[in-house]
Amino acid sequence: MDCSVNPPKELSIQIFGIDGLKMIERGDDIAALICSRFPLCAGDIVTIASTIVSKAQGYTKELQNIVPGQRATRIAEMCGEDPAFMQVVLDEAVDIVLEVPFTLTELSCGHIGVRSGVDNSNVERGIVLYLPPNPMAEAKKLRDGFLKHAGVEVGVIITDTCGRAFRRGQIGHAIGWSGMVAIRDFRGDTDLFGHTLEITEEAVVDEIAGFSNFVMGESNAGIPAVVLRGCVPWQGHDSLYFSKDEDIIRKALTDSHP
Amino acid sequence: MDCSVNPPKELSIQIFGIDGLKMIERGDDIAALICSRFPLCAGDIVTIASTIVSKAQGYTKELQNIVPGQRATRIAEMCGEDPAFMQVVLDEAVDIVLEVPFTLTELSCGHIGVRSGVDNSNVERGIVLYLPPNPMAEAKKLRDGFLKHAGVEVGVIITDTCGRAFRRGQIGHAIGWSGMVAIRDFRGDTDLFGHTLEITEEAVVDEIAGFSNFVMGESNAGIPAVVLRGCVPWQGHDSLYFSKDEDIIRKALTDSHP
Repeated sequence: MDCSVNPPKELSIQIFGIDGLKMIERGDDIAALICSRFPLCAGDIVTIASTIVSKAQGYTKELQNIVPGQRATRIAEMCGEDPAFMQVVLDEAVDIVLEVPFTLTELSCGHIGVRSGVDNSNVERGIVLYLPPNPMAEAKKLRDGFLKHAGVEVGVIITDTCGRAFRRGQIGHAIGWSGMVAIRDFRGDTDLFGHTLEITEEAVVDEIAGFSNFVMGESNAGIPAVVLRGCVPWQGHDSLYFSKDEDIIRKALTDSHP
Repeated sequence: MDCSVNPPKELSIQIFGIDGLKMIERGDDIAALICSRFPLCAGDIVTIASTIVSKAQGYTKELQNIVPGQRATRIAEMCGEDPAFMQVVLDEAVDIVLEVPFTLTELSCGHIGVRSGVDNSNVERGIVLYLPPNPMAEAKKLRDGFLKHAGVEVGVIITDTCGRAFRRGQIGHAIGWSGMVAIRDFRGDTDLFGHTLEITEEAVVDEIAGFSNFVMGESNAGIPAVVLRGCVPWQGHDSLYFSKDEDIIRKALTDSHP
């Protein structure tokens, strides 16, 4: 086919999965390690799995040191979970949206997920990772680190994998971000016919996080970070989470399981 | 930096937003149009906005021809919607999960979304588009079309934009797909420490659909299709939707709003 007459002005985004990083341990400088592995460019978006952020920052607990309380023991029994594991889940939560058949909690950062996102995979047995308590601050620190080590300004998204309503399977979500706003806002934009749009908010950080999760894989592929090059910047706002009052589905869950 | 000693074996995926297509009308051959605009390669994944599939297939209704029934009129009044629009919403639904404050319905294909995904943007005033009743079949037809016009086997995902629980903003979701399974299954896989994974299902078609939606934009950018080149194939299964019995959140919604 001859594209020379009217060549496709196709947008081209390049996606790089960063492999070959050492196994991340407490104290590691993730930004420095990524920069030594891959040359970043200004405007890149770097997505990083929360797992390695938690490992580097030491957000871990040893289950043998946990004394489960009454609520954790009760919920654990109903869910078939380890009570010590459940205690960590409760410790990380600011609110319990649902106890059974699975435990859904809200974290201080606003993220709602199953079992507070506490994870016992990709760590030694008996250790659990918990999500960074302040993932927005972690994203900012990483962004500063990339500026320091690569000399360029990039966007950063920290991702976590979790489920969602109505559909099976987990997908990547954003829990922290820096250098961008979470929501692309089309308020006031017009469609192809010049009509004012009703769909006005797109959760771009989640769309990017989800695809990054696809590139990362879940098991032993060893790709904890992804670089997206060529994404067109967007405008909008940072209110990614519904407030408790406006969250219809959350209210239905707490109402139906008092 | 010198990457020559241990060059990053980074996975590289290329993303192309397909612009420059004509305004799609009833009877248009989307696969042929895309192939005349962009050279596809074997293994590409082509994501296509449901909007243009519905336009090409004539899945439209004229609101002036709709006679709203009692239920549509009642719900429309409570939601501040046009009763004729609401009747189309009910006509497309096989189940109503929630009536107010927003109408959440299940389509015959299994997709659960607000107002049955009925859309009055990017069409003439007074016309609405409804989602393809059989998006899996539409995806298969498109895939066959790409084989016919480009001579290569590609994957196809048809995308719709909709909201989700707990978080603001809409994201792209898959409603039909062909040449792949919806869920990547890690059952039995081990993590970096050799432990059997508990997170076993990843809804890859949704992660790809979400990012494609980011590339497409929502308003007047005119990018209704995206090509992803270099995605590593995956194995798993096709059960993307929870059954009614296992869908805890759905049950909570219907229980709390009888």
